[in-house]
Amino acid sequence: MKYEFNNDRKFDVIAIGRACIDLNAAEYNRPMEDTMTFKKYVGGSPINIAIGSSKLGLKVGFIGKISDDQHGRYIERYVREVGVDTSNIVIDDEGHKTGLTFTEIKSPEDCSILMYREEVADLYLKPEEVHEDYIKQAKVLLVSGTALSKSPSREAILKAVSLAKRNNVKVIFELDYRPYSWKSTEETAVYYSLIAEQSDIVIGTRDEYDMMEHTTGGTNEQTIHYLFQHSPNLVVIKHGVEGSYAYAKSGEIFKGNAYKTKVLKTFGAGDSYASAFLYALINGKDIETALKYGSASASIVVSKHSSSDAMPTVDEIEGLISTRV
Amino acid sequence: MKYEFNNDRKFDVIAIGRACIDLNAAEYNRPMEDTMTFKKYVGGSPINIAIGSSKLGLKVGFIGKISDDQHGRYIERYVREVGVDTSNIVIDDEGHKTGLTFTEIKSPEDCSILMYREEVADLYLKPEEVHEDYIKQAKVLLVSGTALSKSPSREAILKAVSLAKRNNVKVIFELDYRPYSWKSTEETAVYYSLIAEQSDIVIGTRDEYDMMEHTTGGTNEQTIHYLFQHSPNLVVIKHGVEGSYAYAKSGEIFKGNAYKTKVLKTFGAGDSYASAFLYALINGKDIETALKYGSASASIVVSKHSSSDAMPTVDEIEGLISTRV
Amino acid sequence: MKYEFNNDRKFDVIAIGRACIDLNAAEYNRPMEDTMTFKKYVGGSPINIAIGSSKLGLKVGFIGKISDDQHGRYIERYVREVGVDTSNIVIDDEGHKTGLTFTEIKSPEDCSILMYREEVADLYLKPEEVHEDYIKQAKVLLVSGTALSKSPSREAILKAVSLAKRNNVKVIFELDYRPYSWKSTEETAVYYSLIAEQSDIVIGTRDEYDMMEHTTGGTNEQTIHYLFQHSPNLVVIKHGVEGSYAYAKSGEIFKGNAYKTKVLKTFGAGDSYASAFLYALINGKDIETALKYGSASASIVVSKHSSSDAMPTVDEIEGLISTRV
Amino acid sequence: MKYEFNNDRKFDVIAIGRACIDLNAAEYNRPMEDTMTFKKYVGGSPINIAIGSSKLGLKVGFIGKISDDQHGRYIERYVREVGVDTSNIVIDDEGHKTGLTFTEIKSPEDCSILMYREEVADLYLKPEEVHEDYIKQAKVLLVSGTALSKSPSREAILKAVSLAKRNNVKVIFELDYRPYSWKSTEETAVYYSLIAEQSDIVIGTRDEYDMMEHTTGGTNEQTIHYLFQHSPNLVVIKHGVEGSYAYAKSGEIFKGNAYKTKVLKTFGAGDSYASAFLYALINGKDIETALKYGSASASIVVSKHSSSDAMPTVDEIEGLISTRV
Repeated sequence: MKYEFNNDRKFDVIAIGRACIDLNAAEYNRPMEDTMTFKKYVGGSPINIAIGSSKLGLKVGFIGKISDDQHGRYIERYVREVGVDTSNIVIDDEGHKTGLTFTEIKSPEDCSILMYREEVADLYLKPEEVHEDYIKQAKVLLVSGTALSKSPSREAILKAVSLAKRNNVKVIFELDYRPYSWKSTEETAVYYSLIAEQSDIVIGTRDEYDMMEHTTGGTNEQTIHYLFQHSPNLVVIKHGVEGSYAYAKSGEIFKGNAYKTKVLKTFGAGDSYASAFLYALINGKDIETALKYGSASASIVVSKHSSSDAMPTVDEIEGLISTRV
Repeated sequence: MKYEFNNDRKFDVIAIGRACIDLNAAEYNRPMEDTMTFKKYVGGSPINIAIGSSKLGLKVGFIGKISDDQHGRYIERYVREVGVDTSNIVIDDEGHKTGLTFTEIKSPEDCSILMYREEVADLYLKPEEVHEDYIKQAKVLLVSGTALSKSPSREAILKAVSLAKRNNVKVIFELDYRPYSWKSTEETAVYYSLIAEQSDIVIGTRDEYDMMEHTTGGTNEQTIHYLFQHSPNLVVIKHGVEGSYAYAKSGEIFKGNAYKTKVLKTFGAGDSYASAFLYALINGKDIETALKYGSASASIVVSKHSSSDAMPTVDEIEGLISTRV
Repeated sequence: MKYEFNNDRKFDVIAIGRACIDLNAAEYNRPMEDTMTFKKYVGGSPINIAIGSSKLGLKVGFIGKISDDQHGRYIERYVREVGVDTSNIVIDDEGHKTGLTFTEIKSPEDCSILMYREEVADLYLKPEEVHEDYIKQAKVLLVSGTALSKSPSREAILKAVSLAKRNNVKVIFELDYRPYSWKSTEETAVYYSLIAEQSDIVIGTRDEYDMMEHTTGGTNEQTIHYLFQHSPNLVVIKHGVEGSYAYAKSGEIFKGNAYKTKVLKTFGAGDSYASAFLYALINGKDIETALKYGSASASIVVSKHSSSDAMPTVDEIEGLISTRV
Repeated sequence: MKYEFNNDRKFDVIAIGRACIDLNAAEYNRPMEDTMTFKKYVGGSPINIAIGSSKLGLKVGFIGKISDDQHGRYIERYVREVGVDTSNIVIDDEGHKTGLTFTEIKSPEDCSILMYREEVADLYLKPEEVHEDYIKQAKVLLVSGTALSKSPSREAILKAVSLAKRNNVKVIFELDYRPYSWKSTEETAVYYSLIAEQSDIVIGTRDEYDMMEHTTGGTNEQTIHYLFQHSPNLVVIKHGVEGSYAYAKSGEIFKGNAYKTKVLKTFGAGDSYASAFLYALINGKDIETALKYGSASASIVVSKHSSSDAMPTVDEIEGLISTRV
């Protein structure tokens, strides 16, 4: 089964949301207290997906707000150099800072992060900074959930989704749940379900869907029963090392398996998965193949040090798939 | 043309939103600086509509948050005594106060208000305080726009509308735009359009629809073209003394005329209009008649001192209509 | 014993702090829930003292911030008409409202108040709005404690006291403790002691001194032992119906008795006390007489409906004193 | 001229205020956009002074609040291991983060910093977390100005200074002005002058004294004329490469010269200066010698990569002084 996109559009994907800085432990296998050096990378789910998609050859744009300082300038330059259109990235003029994520790599199974998300620039994107003229040039609007956690970014996303639907732009919602910025799980459920109901494709982990449905121990059947009453016609649910499922509204179900690899850390798996899945779908691959692309891309990124800089090429992904039939 | 409701429900209407205190100038025809005495009434669009509907004989419930002080206790007692079910009114436990509206009556044409809306209890209604078991007992959920202006009340409304739709409760959206609590007109437009698109009936003034559409000088044709692409099938647009129009999705248009009266002040016209219109619709009157009920009720209230206490009976409304054929 | 003031000054007293609106129950002997009418008065400790002093014939100025609305304009006009210089009253330009105090008069012994103090204009007085040229024209700077509860009003007071001391203006500190705006009793103690240590005269109830000393059950001896190590040379401690004590640094102690009266409500006693005490002191009366003036003035005000409008004349005070020897 | 301290105290110095993380560019001579690696150090003026003093052999304690995460734990462990008593360091329990300072080293003359100071743990130290039993064990309480910039840290400092004075602990005020957290220069001037007036020794740059006096182009004569009317009896004013002046209330003036060195970056000069000056003073050196210690220490630190880790030993300082007579 293939997925149809509107082909007379300038951009394959426009992603919207946060663009931040990751500070990754340069020394591994120790707690962060013992890590004395950190390496700087661009980070944040939607910008990672934009970077990953662009490196795979898609035409990608990005809507977001960055700080007016060295970190903001670094982000803009980096993503521009990997081919992402930065014309709709807004520079904050109210003194907000770039969000930071320090990573701790104790072992491949035990990674944790320390986030700086107070008054960060990305959450200050305003609805008036989201433009219909830009969004209508895309096949896909990619939304990630964290941008819904605070006003005015929340309203910017609501407006972007409304503009996408008005202009027949497919909305892909990557749930990307981060507890940090949310006031309550009730609040999260309200906005996650609001956007999911209006999306064409929803991607997330089983836990993230539980968050959306304000439940625990929910099943994939409940999730698709709920979402298929609304706009979505493709729902991807990830179950970690057990692989992922894609449910089509037509009734078909596709299973994707995880590719084993030597894991360095778990960060970045979701973003690399989404960019390769999206690449395959937009390039007319069937859904089963798209699931393989996603898994292979995730497998490559978790074996490397960064989430953004490590995004693979098509050759790397197809190489891995070909060796693992 | 008549409007169908789900008849096996305990409540005709459940209103949700603010319940406040009006402090009306006891001395008229002077600026507030010269007004030395104020009379206390219950006020706020959705509670006024609840009071008005209950006095007309509808079975009415109310969802809202009130302060844990003398003003909150007064509100709960007053509305209970006019027959409104107060079982889902929540008492604030975080020290928030009741909103206040001082009115100034310089002349029938020149009235203004002075609002106290900082950190008021009604805007602290939380989504977890809105219960599906209650909402599903209603024919109609009445939402007024001001409750969308701030979190967490905003999320409480989003949840209530979602629950109403899941349970086939008709959603009536009274736009009730008050600039005070909103951060920007962009923000207002985002949430007004979000709720309007999900409502069955929308009621507002021409100016309020312009706010929803983030435009100026919009036409009724544009408004109904937009809304009829979504859930609404009845749209009421009020043009002040020039009367009001009800547009049905089927294509029918109904005109209602204003009833002339000796105006004391303009406050309360919209709420009394909505409660009588709602009463007529739920009692199986056709839309043309419902418009008359609304206009007659508004005409009665603007000739009296309060907005809530002055809500008319069915006899008063029908009496006025019969004399004005 | 008399108290010396710098006599070549234009103003006897400049008071600084809040000017608000009291909404006093027009119907007595009932809970506020049953009070349907409220009468409007100017209120707030320092403005009440300014009004009281001016009515007694002192030359009085006021520094404070009022709202740019009907309530703010009423306050400015009222105090100007009773003779207070309003040239240093600043009109708020950020949309802050006038503070409100609803009073409930259940019985002479059981009065309570309901305050609206969120984001009120008086607490937004900024240090740059306090001018040395004005303060140096006064014999006395009267500070009331509530103005210390929030920034930037807090810094405005700190600056005013610093300017007063630099210009040999006596600082009188009326403790006026209101729990509403303070974050903690520790915070209150920090600022109360900071200002008390720099003042010439401190006036308060026994409970308020306990708050300043961050203790409970403190004694007058402890209080004067502490304060006389710093700037104060006169400390007035009020013990309600048991009367008040004035302690001079020289070692003298003066006792003032309360005057019995038919009490209507307890509000306004402290402010009327302070204004008459101040009047007497500035007019060269000895401290014992000043205590009588204070008590007489308080006794008159608690028998009347308002706190500000009821401030007595010199004749009324002296009349009462003469009948009670 | 020597300075007398109370010698029967357990601690030479107790410093109070912020303890943060510096992320210093591992690659030099380039803008931060091109810096890809950062090294982690403890940072922040008062903790740097505590570290520097402890390395010189003083008995040092620290009062401050740190985050309950990897950065907070690293700070506590580091300062404990250099000998600082950490028994009065409080662990934040409200989710506040450690402040961060990214440094950019373009050239020895062109260094800038990028600070993360939103909702940082150090500014949440509360007055109730400052204990008289601890402060009274010190010869010196060292206060740095940034801790005054926000409540509740501001009140914690006001309380600490009050406790120090009550217990004959000398108060040394390092002005340490950082514009980031202050609302206005008026606000800064209010609190800087409040603390300076109560201190025994004040240390700062000429620009910082201008900030305290709310002026521009102020002279040292004006500064000492003002401060010597209050508690200070020693005032150190630094003029960068032109050296520094120590003014004694007795009228003596001492000049200290800067030591030339190969500068790597300018950060940390002030903190190393203060710790060595303090060390010399407490060890009974005369003021002229103490100025030399300060300058030599600063000279050593600006030639090295960090501010805290590079704090010199007594031998290093005395070695440098001996070669430069």
